[in-house]
Amino acid sequence: MKHYENLTGLFLNRLEQHRESLKNVEPRELYDPENYILGIGGKRLRPLLVLIACDLFNGLPECALDSAMCVELFHNFSLVHDDILDEAPLRRSQATVHSKWNTNIAILSGDVMLVKAFRLLEKYPDPEFKQLAKLFSQTAIEVCEGQQLDMNFENQTSVSAEDYLNMITRKTAVLLGCSLQMGAINSGAAKKDQENIYEFGRHLGIAFQLLDDLLDAYGNTSEFGKVSGGDIVANKKTYLLIKALETGNEWQQAELKRLMQLGKEHAEEKIKGVKNLYNDLNISNICRQKADEHTQIAINHLATIAADETKKNNLKQFAAGLLNRTL
Amino acid sequence: MKHYENLTGLFLNRLEQHRESLKNVEPRELYDPENYILGIGGKRLRPLLVLIACDLFNGLPECALDSAMCVELFHNFSLVHDDILDEAPLRRSQATVHSKWNTNIAILSGDVMLVKAFRLLEKYPDPEFKQLAKLFSQTAIEVCEGQQLDMNFENQTSVSAEDYLNMITRKTAVLLGCSLQMGAINSGAAKKDQENIYEFGRHLGIAFQLLDDLLDAYGNTSEFGKVSGGDIVANKKTYLLIKALETGNEWQQAELKRLMQLGKEHAEEKIKGVKNLYNDLNISNICRQKADEHTQIAINHLATIAADETKKNNLKQFAAGLLNRTL
Repeated sequence: MKHYENLTGLFLNRLEQHRESLKNVEPRELYDPENYILGIGGKRLRPLLVLIACDLFNGLPECALDSAMCVELFHNFSLVHDDILDEAPLRRSQATVHSKWNTNIAILSGDVMLVKAFRLLEKYPDPEFKQLAKLFSQTAIEVCEGQQLDMNFENQTSVSAEDYLNMITRKTAVLLGCSLQMGAINSGAAKKDQENIYEFGRHLGIAFQLLDDLLDAYGNTSEFGKVSGGDIVANKKTYLLIKALETGNEWQQAELKRLMQLGKEHAEEKIKGVKNLYNDLNISNICRQKADEHTQIAINHLATIAADETKKNNLKQFAAGLLNRTL
Repeated sequence: MKHYENLTGLFLNRLEQHRESLKNVEPRELYDPENYILGIGGKRLRPLLVLIACDLFNGLPECALDSAMCVELFHNFSLVHDDILDEAPLRRSQATVHSKWNTNIAILSGDVMLVKAFRLLEKYPDPEFKQLAKLFSQTAIEVCEGQQLDMNFENQTSVSAEDYLNMITRKTAVLLGCSLQMGAINSGAAKKDQENIYEFGRHLGIAFQLLDDLLDAYGNTSEFGKVSGGDIVANKKTYLLIKALETGNEWQQAELKRLMQLGKEHAEEKIKGVKNLYNDLNISNICRQKADEHTQIAINHLATIAADETKKNNLKQFAAGLLNRTL
């Protein structure tokens, strides 16, 4: 992580410059929410990936700052609209845009953020602009599709592991691949290297999301800022639940379904019961194995890239940090 | 209008092709609404303007079909999101997307339509793509700003005529200018001609919206599909109301404010009273004069364009038809 402190600092400056530029623009109802959501924090993972990839292929990270701002703004657009869809009152312990202002303002300011994300790419020369815009548009659509699939799962009685992996690929993973590829484009990397760094990011994203599901059930409240077991209480169709429903015997499936009917007032019993079943079925290992599979594919893609070995190793260590394991 | 029947036919084919392409794409919840909203009709004015401008500058209209589809898709995106904001149950006597499906689907399918509008421009060569994308993004943001300003007016006690003209310019007029300029770009028109055709469309759009305000108060129900006086009942801050509040004497202003307090159950009294005041203050003439002013500016811009006189005259007659007057 320490290798990338300079890159993070570089992006945070660019972000402040962007937020500063919003201060005197009318109508305020459209630009205050943009300023607000960009200001409530976040790991800034996606813009950092843009800069890391640009540096990996020996580009000047400064040249990738507008791409970095583009993916961060897009990510924040998706948070604003998703929070409406999820009726979420809070994000990072702060009011969401639709609860601080209202749904109409959240819709419209989100729309503007989406268009402005595109505009950030306009500073690049024509051919580079088109490469970036095509990749970005394709990704933006996949992210929306992922969000829709996730919503659909709520009303589906059965979701396959394959459907689930397809959903998280679109909703989460492709934007990580896109961020890395945008940085690669900015550095003028070869097409083959662009594809490999994209796939590295995509598979890393899948592994990351699988481990995130695991964390929700087994993680530590204080460390991750989430109440452990939230997905279980909400019957969220995570990889864990899907695999438990798939691999459990008749009795275990019936017990799981009974537990899923329990209301929020029985949260503690529900979490305990479901986790007991997960333990009996070795679900955490199954999930970890699937994450390892995608981590390994990611690593293989990184290995084939023609770039400085030290830089590649730094990126590998960074990925290990994200996945909270050694690589 | 008859001059442009071929162009309209050309676009309608392209539109059907687009709708056909949506039929086997998943998730259905994202693409059925797009297919639906594109299918409930409309004048297809914006795509027609793209093709007209392309033809005016001796481009092949076929080359402008993707730009035409882009502006039509964007226009429909804005309808889907605006109908949520306005809580409108119907559009062209059909259920709006958020009432037929739900608000979440309307938000997300709208988002995808916005991104897909951009993608339609990707088929153009790099420099043309960038010119189109820049113009389109700038316009998209202005349209969102116009919608926000319009919403703000609902809660403002006083709106100036200048504020109002600024709002309709963004919400309605710039997209007409943009459509024409996109066709001009597709035909390879000179920058100066591009600017003039944009300004022609923008001022035509302002005139059109002013006359639309007039129609709402004085139009014929059967002809325009709107209940006459709807804006009056809703206290909508149209040019007519703004000018009446601005030019009325103390008594007239007080009477207007009294009428504005009347609920929907007194719609008839309200419409009659407000229109009496409009008549006393000669408001319809003031509005018509302002529309004429912008029409004249539009015509002047058209006159300076270096293009075939017959084609220019056809466009002038088309504009006259839109404004329901002779030019």
